[in-house]
Amino acid sequence: MSVNRHVTGPSGPSPVDVPRGLAGVVVAETEVGDVRGLEGFYHYRQYSAVELARSRSFEDVWHLLVHGALPDARRGAAFAAETAAMRRLPDAVSAALPAVAAAGGHSGPFAGLRTALSLLGAARGFRPVYDLSAEQRRQDTLVAAAAVPTLLTALHRLGRGLDPVQPREDLSFAANYLYMLTGAEPDARRTRAVEQYLISTIDHGFNASTFTARVIASTGADVAAALTGALAALSGPLHGGAPSRALDTLDAIGTPERIDTWIRERVLSGERIMGFGHAVYRTEDPRSRMLREVAQGFGGPRVEFAVEVERRVEAILAELKPGRELHTNVEFYAGVVMELCGLPREMFTTTFAAARTVGWSANILEQARDSKIIRPAARYVGPGAPVGVPAVA
Amino acid sequence: MSVNRHVTGPSGPSPVDVPRGLAGVVVAETEVGDVRGLEGFYHYRQYSAVELARSRSFEDVWHLLVHGALPDARRGAAFAAETAAMRRLPDAVSAALPAVAAAGGHSGPFAGLRTALSLLGAARGFRPVYDLSAEQRRQDTLVAAAAVPTLLTALHRLGRGLDPVQPREDLSFAANYLYMLTGAEPDARRTRAVEQYLISTIDHGFNASTFTARVIASTGADVAAALTGALAALSGPLHGGAPSRALDTLDAIGTPERIDTWIRERVLSGERIMGFGHAVYRTEDPRSRMLREVAQGFGGPRVEFAVEVERRVEAILAELKPGRELHTNVEFYAGVVMELCGLPREMFTTTFAAARTVGWSANILEQARDSKIIRPAARYVGPGAPVGVPAVA
Repeated sequence: MSVNRHVTGPSGPSPVDVPRGLAGVVVAETEVGDVRGLEGFYHYRQYSAVELARSRSFEDVWHLLVHGALPDARRGAAFAAETAAMRRLPDAVSAALPAVAAAGGHSGPFAGLRTALSLLGAARGFRPVYDLSAEQRRQDTLVAAAAVPTLLTALHRLGRGLDPVQPREDLSFAANYLYMLTGAEPDARRTRAVEQYLISTIDHGFNASTFTARVIASTGADVAAALTGALAALSGPLHGGAPSRALDTLDAIGTPERIDTWIRERVLSGERIMGFGHAVYRTEDPRSRMLREVAQGFGGPRVEFAVEVERRVEAILAELKPGRELHTNVEFYAGVVMELCGLPREMFTTTFAAARTVGWSANILEQARDSKIIRPAARYVGPGAPVGVPAVA
Repeated sequence: MSVNRHVTGPSGPSPVDVPRGLAGVVVAETEVGDVRGLEGFYHYRQYSAVELARSRSFEDVWHLLVHGALPDARRGAAFAAETAAMRRLPDAVSAALPAVAAAGGHSGPFAGLRTALSLLGAARGFRPVYDLSAEQRRQDTLVAAAAVPTLLTALHRLGRGLDPVQPREDLSFAANYLYMLTGAEPDARRTRAVEQYLISTIDHGFNASTFTARVIASTGADVAAALTGALAALSGPLHGGAPSRALDTLDAIGTPERIDTWIRERVLSGERIMGFGHAVYRTEDPRSRMLREVAQGFGGPRVEFAVEVERRVEAILAELKPGRELHTNVEFYAGVVMELCGLPREMFTTTFAAARTVGWSANILEQARDSKIIRPAARYVGPGAPVGVPAVA
């Protein structure tokens, strides 16, 4: 496959080249947010995402994404209470989770969450988005996103022979997530660190999972269908968003004196250093900068080592690949922060998914206001003339 | 949203208009098949799909789709045996299905199948397609497609308080499907009618579900992830493929003498007549023609009524909408045939999905040979200048 062409059907448009993988092809107009790679800046509905992470709660930013505006204090408290009440699973889903965990637990948390979220949609009786009012659609996205941490932590614990911890409505989204994971109420610093990570990763421009959510929503399918498909796309290794890989780099290097040799060997043999470089940013990744500060707030040898690795890798990359502007990406300090907060490494990517569910929700709601199915074409490039079906030989 | 434009990023291509919903935009090159709307013809890898349905088994055509060639008799028998042995579910999945059916059964078979297929992938430990050889990927698609009828019929029976019927390896794909549904071995005529319907609906050009499968596969996600997303897209009402709607039309008309009044009223008030008209075909739908013959092989008053409705509706549409070339589409006689074969109406669309899983499989395998993620762009159209985050008011 190289460059694609328009199909020239009976009523089709004139042929035009579009790049492979639809790179750079605008398939939707959005008011959800934007990434400005040259400026090292991204925003949610006009507000710097990093500034939101520094100053607001996850619930406030969730409200911004799905209602279109930041809430005032009263409205924010009401929204937090409304979504906290949605954390508890329907009894039938709770009853099914042990069997789901037993059947699929060894495949990792992604396949489990994909299954459980699909089941939640079925249990809640989600209906096609085109059959619902805008308010009903939004309710379905809230029900789904509120339940993701409950599903995730329940499957995690069931896989380890532990009983799920029931959600608490008196805790924030982030605190309740950590609480359901461990059964113990987290301290304020860890809660806020996870919350800031979650806010910073709610949305980040268009990508394959967001696009998948919108394609499915464009058929009129229900919110759980669209979110399940988005999760399916996010689970692909090319999609990105795997902060545990950056920790693997730290572990592989091991000690400060090994940094230079380890990095030079890999860069010279053409390997990518996980946690460095980004397809869009030509500056420092704004998420990385914020999460470094969060990590430094914890301090300790692990954080000092990470900062030293960052400093040395950037220097070596600048020397060996001049002009490439390779900096840490979101994965690098996200991994460090989640480790500091006690999240097990295998849950890093699904924690990312828990936040991204809110971004997908905003995209689904936006897509559902359109009524045009996303239905591209393919060009047949096999042998030309039809041939008769041979009799069974 | 109107016409989309290319994004003009730092290294992006020059701006170019692409139609809304990507209509007519070629996003992939394919050797799986093609639909030629002007000729009333569609094919799978060069072979007329309708001719395949008339002369071959479902398993032979499945082999054509995923192996790229029609098998000879020996190879065909081996492939049939290989896939028949994959029908049985892992014990852990069988154990989970009652709870899945109990939690989601009221939402209809689509949400249940979506959940169950996701669970099967988790239980089978499907790995990312880019981590697998071409042969391993194909195996995963076979395992999934072979299990779909087992999952579907098990959920259907569990929802009615019946025990699932275990698959039999000595029956064909189509016969075993009907057998697992009812517990009784179907007669040859019904088996062959369902088989011909299944063959004719394996693939039909690019559409939103096939595209979804390819987007997810392009991230490197596993086969079950891609199929689950495709199922999610197929469940949307705009996707089409709902043969039960055409039967609803027959039921609503009721008797031959009511045909003219009923149809004229609806056409004159601008309503669409379900089962008539197709986005691509400007001729008779080739699937409709074949399925009419299949139905006429059964005979009886229901079939005679359907043929009479078709004759009168085409005449009235030609009179009221001259030049529009509105004929029956695949849904019309597909509904009639499935009803004659004893399939319950609520399973029509998931029966369609069982066949389409084979078409999605071929598309996933083709996409996985590429290594380019499908990742388009969106254009931000919200307010321009970033604004500072207000303190909580």
